[in-house]
Amino acid sequence: MIRIDRADIAFQLFDLLDADRLSEATRFADWDRSGIDNVLDTAERIAIDHFLPHAAAVDENEPKFVDGKAIVDPRVGAALAVYREAGFFGAGFDHEWGGAQMPETLRIACAYMFSATNIGTAGYPFLTIGAANLIASFGSDEQKARYLAPMVEGRFFGTMCLSEPQAGSSLSDIATKAEPAGDGTYRISGRKMWISGGEQEMSENIVHMVLAKIPGGPAGVKGISLFIVPKYRVGEDGAVGARNGVTLAGLNHKMGYRGTTNTLLNFGEAGECIGHLVGEPHKGLAYMFQMMNEARIGVGLGATALASAGYQASLAYAKDRPQGRHPDGKDATSKQVPIVEHADIRRLLLAQKSAVEGAFALLLYCARLVDGIRIGTDEAKMRDDELLLDLLTPVAKSWPSEFCLEANKHAIQVLGGYGYTRDYPVERLYRDNRLNPIHEGTHGIQGMDILGRKVVQANGSGLELLAGRIGETVAEASSVAVLSAHASDLANHLAETVKLTRVLAGELAKDPRKALANATIYLDMFGHVVIAWMWLRQALVAAHKLEAGEGDANFLHGKLAACRYFFAYELPRTKAQKELLAKLDETTLDMQAEWF
Amino acid sequence: MIRIDRADIAFQLFDLLDADRLSEATRFADWDRSGIDNVLDTAERIAIDHFLPHAAAVDENEPKFVDGKAIVDPRVGAALAVYREAGFFGAGFDHEWGGAQMPETLRIACAYMFSATNIGTAGYPFLTIGAANLIASFGSDEQKARYLAPMVEGRFFGTMCLSEPQAGSSLSDIATKAEPAGDGTYRISGRKMWISGGEQEMSENIVHMVLAKIPGGPAGVKGISLFIVPKYRVGEDGAVGARNGVTLAGLNHKMGYRGTTNTLLNFGEAGECIGHLVGEPHKGLAYMFQMMNEARIGVGLGATALASAGYQASLAYAKDRPQGRHPDGKDATSKQVPIVEHADIRRLLLAQKSAVEGAFALLLYCARLVDGIRIGTDEAKMRDDELLLDLLTPVAKSWPSEFCLEANKHAIQVLGGYGYTRDYPVERLYRDNRLNPIHEGTHGIQGMDILGRKVVQANGSGLELLAGRIGETVAEASSVAVLSAHASDLANHLAETVKLTRVLAGELAKDPRKALANATIYLDMFGHVVIAWMWLRQALVAAHKLEAGEGDANFLHGKLAACRYFFAYELPRTKAQKELLAKLDETTLDMQAEWF
Repeated sequence: MIRIDRADIAFQLFDLLDADRLSEATRFADWDRSGIDNVLDTAERIAIDHFLPHAAAVDENEPKFVDGKAIVDPRVGAALAVYREAGFFGAGFDHEWGGAQMPETLRIACAYMFSATNIGTAGYPFLTIGAANLIASFGSDEQKARYLAPMVEGRFFGTMCLSEPQAGSSLSDIATKAEPAGDGTYRISGRKMWISGGEQEMSENIVHMVLAKIPGGPAGVKGISLFIVPKYRVGEDGAVGARNGVTLAGLNHKMGYRGTTNTLLNFGEAGECIGHLVGEPHKGLAYMFQMMNEARIGVGLGATALASAGYQASLAYAKDRPQGRHPDGKDATSKQVPIVEHADIRRLLLAQKSAVEGAFALLLYCARLVDGIRIGTDEAKMRDDELLLDLLTPVAKSWPSEFCLEANKHAIQVLGGYGYTRDYPVERLYRDNRLNPIHEGTHGIQGMDILGRKVVQANGSGLELLAGRIGETVAEASSVAVLSAHASDLANHLAETVKLTRVLAGELAKDPRKALANATIYLDMFGHVVIAWMWLRQALVAAHKLEAGEGDANFLHGKLAACRYFFAYELPRTKAQKELLAKLDETTLDMQAEWF
Repeated sequence: MIRIDRADIAFQLFDLLDADRLSEATRFADWDRSGIDNVLDTAERIAIDHFLPHAAAVDENEPKFVDGKAIVDPRVGAALAVYREAGFFGAGFDHEWGGAQMPETLRIACAYMFSATNIGTAGYPFLTIGAANLIASFGSDEQKARYLAPMVEGRFFGTMCLSEPQAGSSLSDIATKAEPAGDGTYRISGRKMWISGGEQEMSENIVHMVLAKIPGGPAGVKGISLFIVPKYRVGEDGAVGARNGVTLAGLNHKMGYRGTTNTLLNFGEAGECIGHLVGEPHKGLAYMFQMMNEARIGVGLGATALASAGYQASLAYAKDRPQGRHPDGKDATSKQVPIVEHADIRRLLLAQKSAVEGAFALLLYCARLVDGIRIGTDEAKMRDDELLLDLLTPVAKSWPSEFCLEANKHAIQVLGGYGYTRDYPVERLYRDNRLNPIHEGTHGIQGMDILGRKVVQANGSGLELLAGRIGETVAEASSVAVLSAHASDLANHLAETVKLTRVLAGELAKDPRKALANATIYLDMFGHVVIAWMWLRQALVAAHKLEAGEGDANFLHGKLAACRYFFAYELPRTKAQKELLAKLDETTLDMQAEWF
C-alpha cells in the first residue's frame, strides 16, 4: 500500500526549486538532471525493495539486549549493506573524504524515500551522517582520516550523545566528566540516555559524539566540550582495535521507531573510556548545535516521510474500498461508492496531502538554502540565507512533528477498524511519528527557540527577510486570478504575525516569562503561515503550468485543490492563536501546581 | 502513577448533579449518600487492586487464537470474578431480574474507574451490560429468564454483532441471513467482523445480539432483524447445553485495547446456528439503536477515562521531575525546578484537565438525563430529556474520542522520552484511545448524525431545548464577577451556533451533500460549545463554594483555572470553524478522486 510519489518529488525538485541548475556550480558539477534522476531511481528501488519489506517485521521484533549486546533483526543490516554499496552514507560529503558531493536538496529527497519506507532502518545512516558532519566541520585532519573516512564509507556508524537520565531538555545539567589523561586524550565517565543507534553489531565500529564537562570549566552550557568516543579504539593505521570503555546499560522499549536501537550507555564504568576532544574545550554545545540543526531538519523530514507513507496507504484504500452512498442517494439496492467519494474522507485525505506536501516543500526549501550557502559567491546573500535557515529550522522540525502526526491519525481514520489493526501499516506509522515532537528538542523547546531567540535575534532581521521572501510570492500570486484571494489572505496573516512579534519581542525584554508563556502556540501559528506560503509557491507553479498546458493536469489540479484546502481549513485556525498571543494571556502562569 | 480522582467524582456527582437526591425516587430508594459512597469505595478498590495491576501485562500479552479458542490472560478473568462477586454486572438492572437498580449516574461513575485502570478488562462487562439491556427492553419474558438473568449475574457475557467485512459504517449492506426453521427459531448464516468479546473462555456462555436479514424482507436497513444467538444453547431450565454453530474465524491484532478480544465470527458454517428473534421482524435496527446509543455514551466514557489516567500519570510526573529553569532564572548553578513550574507543561496539563473533567461532566449529565427519564413523573419533561439526550449522544461519543485522545497525546509529551517508552503507561493509553473515534459509529458518522438528524429533527426543538438549558447557566453566571465574561462569551457562541444551524438546516433540504460536506467540523464545533457549557456549570459551583468558604480551596481554584483555560484556549477555535461552515465551503466536494 505504501508507494513513493515520484511525480511530487520531481515537481518539488525541478518545477519549484530548479534543482537541475545546481550542477552549474563546480561543487555539484556531477549532478545534472540525468545524474539526479539516476540517483532518485536508485534510492526508490532500494527503499521499496530493501527497506520496506522488513519494516513491519522489525516493529514486531524489536532489538534485544543479549549478553551486553543489542541484537537487531538481521534484515536491517542487510538493507543497510545495499544502501552502503550504493554510496548513500557518503552522498553529501566532499570528494576529499570519499563522498559524492551530492546537493543537500537531492540528499533530502532520497532520505525522504528511505524514511517513508522504513524509519527504523533509516535511523542509522541519519545519525551516522550527522556525526560525520560534525567531524567534517570541527575535527582535526587526523580525526577525519581516522573516523570520518570510514563513516563516509558506511563502515563505522555514529551517534550523538547529549542527554543523560537527569538532563534531557536541560543540557546545562549534564554530569558526564572528561578528565585530561595528560597525553592529549581524556577519560570519559558518566551515563548517557536516549542514545539512538548507541549499540548494534552491524557496523565495524560506532563513533559516539559525546558532550561532557572538563573539570574546572565554567558551569552550565559554557562548560560543555565535545568528544569523539569510539566503541572500539582505532589505530593510527585506521585498524579497529580493542574495546573502549563504553558499555550498553539497557535498551529502551518504545511505542514505535523500534528498528532503531535506543540505549542507555555507561562510559568508563567497565574499563577505561578514552575520548578525543573535538575542536576547543568548552565549545562543545556550539559545535553540537550544527548537528542538532541538521538533525532537527532530519526529524521534520522523518515526520513528513511517515505521513507520506500513511497518506499513500490511506489513499489507495479509499479508492478501493466500497462503503455507503451519498447523502442524496440512499437507495439500498444501488451500488456502494468507493469511500474516496465521501466528503469527509476527502477532507481527511486533503488534510494529509496538504500536510505532507506542504512540509516536504519546506524541508526541500531549507535544503536548498544549505546548498545555496555552500556554493554561494555573494557574501551578503549567503548571510541572508543562513539567517533564514536559522529562523526556519524550528519550524522545519516542529510543524511536521505536530501536523504530520495528525496526518497519520487521519490515515488510520480513513481505514476505520482495519486501520487500527496491525495488518495495515497505518497504525505503525502513527506510533513511529509520535516520537518526533519529543526528540531533538521537544515541541516546547522549539517554541522557546523561535520566539525567545530566532525571531528577535539580529534585531528581527531574520523575520524581516522571511517577510520579504513571502512578499515576493504574494506579489506574484496576486496577479493570478485563482490565487489572488489566497495571496491577500497570506499577506494579511503575515502582516499580523510581524506586528504580533513586535509586541512579544517588546514584552520579552520586560518580562520573559510572560512573553514566552505561549511560545508553543506561537510556534504552531508561525508554522501555519510558513506552510501556507509553501502552498502558495506550489500553487503558483501549478497554475502557470496548467495555463501553459504543460504537465499532468490531474496532478496540477490536485496541487491547487490542496492549496485551497490549506487556506480554507488550516490557515484560519491561526486567528484565534494570534488573538491569544496578542493578549499576552497569563492563564498558565496564574495556574498553581497545587490547584491541579 | 495512575490514580483515581475521587474528589472530582464527588464534586461532579454531588455538587453538580445532586446525585444524593436520586434516592427520593422509589426506584433508587437504596441509593442514599452512604449507599453511593460505599459503592464508589468498592469500585475504586476493585479498580486499583484488581484491574490496574494487569493492564500493562495484558497489553503485552494479547489474546491468542488456539484451536478455535481465544485464550485471554487469566488475570482478566480473575479480575472480572471479583467484579462479578461485587454485583457490578447487574448494578443497573431491575430487582426483578436480580439487579441492584443503581442509578445510571452512579453506574457511569463506577465504570469510569474501571475503564481508567484497565479498559481492556472493562470491555467485557461493558458489552455484556449493553446486550443485556437490549433483552431487558425488547426480549420476551422467556428470553429474559433464559438469557438476561445469567447476564445480570455475570455468568453469561454478551456481544453486539453488527458489522461484517463488507459492511462497517453502511449497515444497510449486511448480508447475514436468518432463515425461519418452522419451529419459531431461525437458522443464522454469515460472517460478523470486529466483534469485541466475540470469543473467550471466561464466561459460561456468550450471548451474541446479531443483526441479520430474514429472506424476503425489505432491502436495506428496513429488512434488518435482531436475534439472540448463544455460543452454547440454553435449555428451558437454563442449563447450558451443546455448542451452537458460532465459530471463531480469527482474532484481530490491534494497536491497543488489547485485553478485549476482537473477533471475526462465522455463523452457521460449522454446524447449525440457531437464532431467536427479538421483538418483531425487521425492527432490529431500531432496537439495536438503543444499545448503540448506550454504547456511544460508553465509548465517550472510555475515552474520557483513558485520558483521566494519562492526566493523573503525567501530573504526578510533572510534580516530581526536576528539569530546567524559568526563562528569567537561567543561572546554571541554581536548582532545577519541577517541570510543573514551566508554562508550557502547565498548558499541557490544563488541556488534559479541561478535556477530562469537561467530558466527564457531560457524560454524567447524560447519565443523569437517563435517570430522570426513568424516574420521571412529568411526561413533558421526560420527553424533553429524551430529546436532549438524543441530541447530546453524538457529542458525548465523539468529543471525548477526539479531544481526550489529544489529551493522551499531551500526557506523553509531559513525560518526554520516558512517555514514549513502555515503562510508563501513557503510550499504552494513547494507543488504547485511538480506537474510540472509530468504533460505534466513526467520527464522520457522528457528524452526519448530529447535523443531518439530531439538530434538525422535530423542527429543531432539541437544539432549542439545549439552548434554553445553556441559557439558564449563562444567566446565573452573568451575575458572578469572575464568570461574567465567560458567560457572555458562551452566549455569543451559542447564538452563532443556533443561527448557523438554521442556515445549514435550510441547505439540508435543498442540497444535502453541500449541507453535510463539513458535518464533522460542525460536530467538533458543537462539542466545544457544549463542553464550554459544562465548564461554566462547574465554575459556577466552584465560585459559589469558594465564596461560601466551603470545600477544598485548591481544588475549587483548579476548577476555575481549567474553565478559564477552556474559554481562553479552546472555545475560540470554533470561530474559524463556524466561518467555514457558514460559507458552505465546497473544497471537498470540488476535489476529484483522480486529482489525489
